[in-house]
Amino acid sequence: MTKLEQIQQWTAEQHASMTYLSNPKTIQYLTGFGSDPIERVLALVVFPDQDPFIFAPALEVEVIKSTGWKFPVIGYLDHENPWAMIADQVKQRHVNPDHIALEKGQLPVARMEALAAQFSNPHFDLDITSFIERMRLIKSAEEIKKLEIAGKWDDFAFEHGFAAVKAGKTEQSAVAELQYALMKEGIMEMSFGSLVQAGAHAAEPHGATNDTKFENNELVLFDLGTVYDGYISDASRTVALGTPTAKEKEIYDVCLEAQLTAQAAVKPGMTAAELDKIARDIITKAGYGEYFIHRLGHGMGMSDHEFPSIMEGNDLVLEPGMCFSIEPGIYIPGVAGVRIEDCVHVTADGSLPFTHTSKELTYVG
Amino acid sequence: MTKLEQIQQWTAEQHASMTYLSNPKTIQYLTGFGSDPIERVLALVVFPDQDPFIFAPALEVEVIKSTGWKFPVIGYLDHENPWAMIADQVKQRHVNPDHIALEKGQLPVARMEALAAQFSNPHFDLDITSFIERMRLIKSAEEIKKLEIAGKWDDFAFEHGFAAVKAGKTEQSAVAELQYALMKEGIMEMSFGSLVQAGAHAAEPHGATNDTKFENNELVLFDLGTVYDGYISDASRTVALGTPTAKEKEIYDVCLEAQLTAQAAVKPGMTAAELDKIARDIITKAGYGEYFIHRLGHGMGMSDHEFPSIMEGNDLVLEPGMCFSIEPGIYIPGVAGVRIEDCVHVTADGSLPFTHTSKELTYVG
Repeated sequence: MTKLEQIQQWTAEQHASMTYLSNPKTIQYLTGFGSDPIERVLALVVFPDQDPFIFAPALEVEVIKSTGWKFPVIGYLDHENPWAMIADQVKQRHVNPDHIALEKGQLPVARMEALAAQFSNPHFDLDITSFIERMRLIKSAEEIKKLEIAGKWDDFAFEHGFAAVKAGKTEQSAVAELQYALMKEGIMEMSFGSLVQAGAHAAEPHGATNDTKFENNELVLFDLGTVYDGYISDASRTVALGTPTAKEKEIYDVCLEAQLTAQAAVKPGMTAAELDKIARDIITKAGYGEYFIHRLGHGMGMSDHEFPSIMEGNDLVLEPGMCFSIEPGIYIPGVAGVRIEDCVHVTADGSLPFTHTSKELTYVG
Repeated sequence: MTKLEQIQQWTAEQHASMTYLSNPKTIQYLTGFGSDPIERVLALVVFPDQDPFIFAPALEVEVIKSTGWKFPVIGYLDHENPWAMIADQVKQRHVNPDHIALEKGQLPVARMEALAAQFSNPHFDLDITSFIERMRLIKSAEEIKKLEIAGKWDDFAFEHGFAAVKAGKTEQSAVAELQYALMKEGIMEMSFGSLVQAGAHAAEPHGATNDTKFENNELVLFDLGTVYDGYISDASRTVALGTPTAKEKEIYDVCLEAQLTAQAAVKPGMTAAELDKIARDIITKAGYGEYFIHRLGHGMGMSDHEFPSIMEGNDLVLEPGMCFSIEPGIYIPGVAGVRIEDCVHVTADGSLPFTHTSKELTYVG
């Protein structure tokens, strides 16, 4: 059964008159057509017993057809009313939209209201978000192949980024060099703004790369990811320019032990919370628990930060095919920040990482 | 009155018990704190007669304080329930949340429902989206200054991008060169994926830059933008590598006439639809109307594609301080695509562009 047929089956089982899918990532996952419609309306409408259709900006119609989409695609121009046109398509199919399933996790309230205004007695009691999250949670062999390729480009980027760390150069210049190296190979898109943070600046885990200059004898944190055919990578390394202090070396070693121990412990049947605890306990016992202020990891695949969340309180049981980051961090304000991260996929008896750059403390410069 | 005080006043006038702001761009606009919380919860809650508070991931708390935010900021950890914590803050303030205003244009349905579940009798009858859009529609002198700087970086990028157009090189290599040049100057963020499209590839107005090689005697389309201090630029140019055909030269000239005529016609008091029609009529009279398949322009400022939309049916009257693109395009499948775009701000008696790269057909290579 195709993924799209699974959605159709879900729609029938829920006794929904239709499922209105609006998350561009969902549409890409189900159809292979990826786009960012920004504020324009893009939807995939699935019925229990009729063919689905895509509703899209006119600009996208030819691209959608070229991806092999074999069902109707309806384009609209900017001055047309998309909601009336969608309703018209529904009415043409003699569907009484009394129970409409939505992607409530993504659809803005105003769009639900705009859709509602087209019908006489709509009910939006059904949410397909968690069903799709569950589908996307377990990656197929084909998806893992793409994640592995994206991961290899992270290793390539680290190599070029580390080579650009020289005292007196800026964090930004290291990002420039690694992204330029990637772009020359045709890797045009990063999964998020590449992060390079030097010294105490790395103690701001959500700060941005800026014009801070590298200085001798400090730690430098890299966190970056690439996009390959709609799938992303995400990895972090912390390297030493010159000789770190004993304190810096200590927090590096604690963080590394937490990362390696957690990564080695991954196996089907354990929970996400148990995995988080393995890393957290090591950091806490070493006295740095208060400086590890985020969860151990996040799911990843078509986007960063999807399910499963590897954190306290999440009793989700790990299964083969799940993909997530393992990224303990220790951030001591005014001193230094260390984060070491691989993303992995769960296998039958353990896990395999998507990135392979050494995690032993690397000396650069 | 500060922007935040205007929101407070609106909240009082609407008899709302509170306004729940959730769009990160809105929060940046009102507070100066910009971030991408991805799936985490970030909110600015405004009351009619009490101080507002920010609710944010714990990771962001220090950054928020450092931007000068003088009211409370409440951080939450990943394993905590943000909705219960927000509700607790509201209850501490003795607010009865019977009428909660939302940003319905952005807030996902599931988040409205999660908020609703915390209160006994919530009503979400108020939507502040259009009030904020209206505030953001008229740019201040300070905002226009940032847009001008972002625009200058587009001119810089065009110069480097045009120099990289050589027969046998790829579209991607031109993007690599122009973005590398920007990054070396500390301009790290593009407002969208830079577009370079050669020959017939440019006839796909929403296609992506790929490894298509430049060939002699074709048109090459550039569309790009940068981000400066939270404000963006966006501009397009189409250049000639070698000698274009007579047909290509003709569509270029028609598109240019449409762009120049529309840009010269901008003045306060006319409507967005009237401006669209000026450009569209020129292209239609020349016989290419069917190939101009999008609106003339979109508003811009903190993001691309904000209000006002310059299109048929939009009777919005232009006013000084409005900022938008003027970007006619002619796309002939299998042949060539031409788009010429400047973004402008409306002045007391006309408009001024943010980009200054020549729009006469430029020969490169």
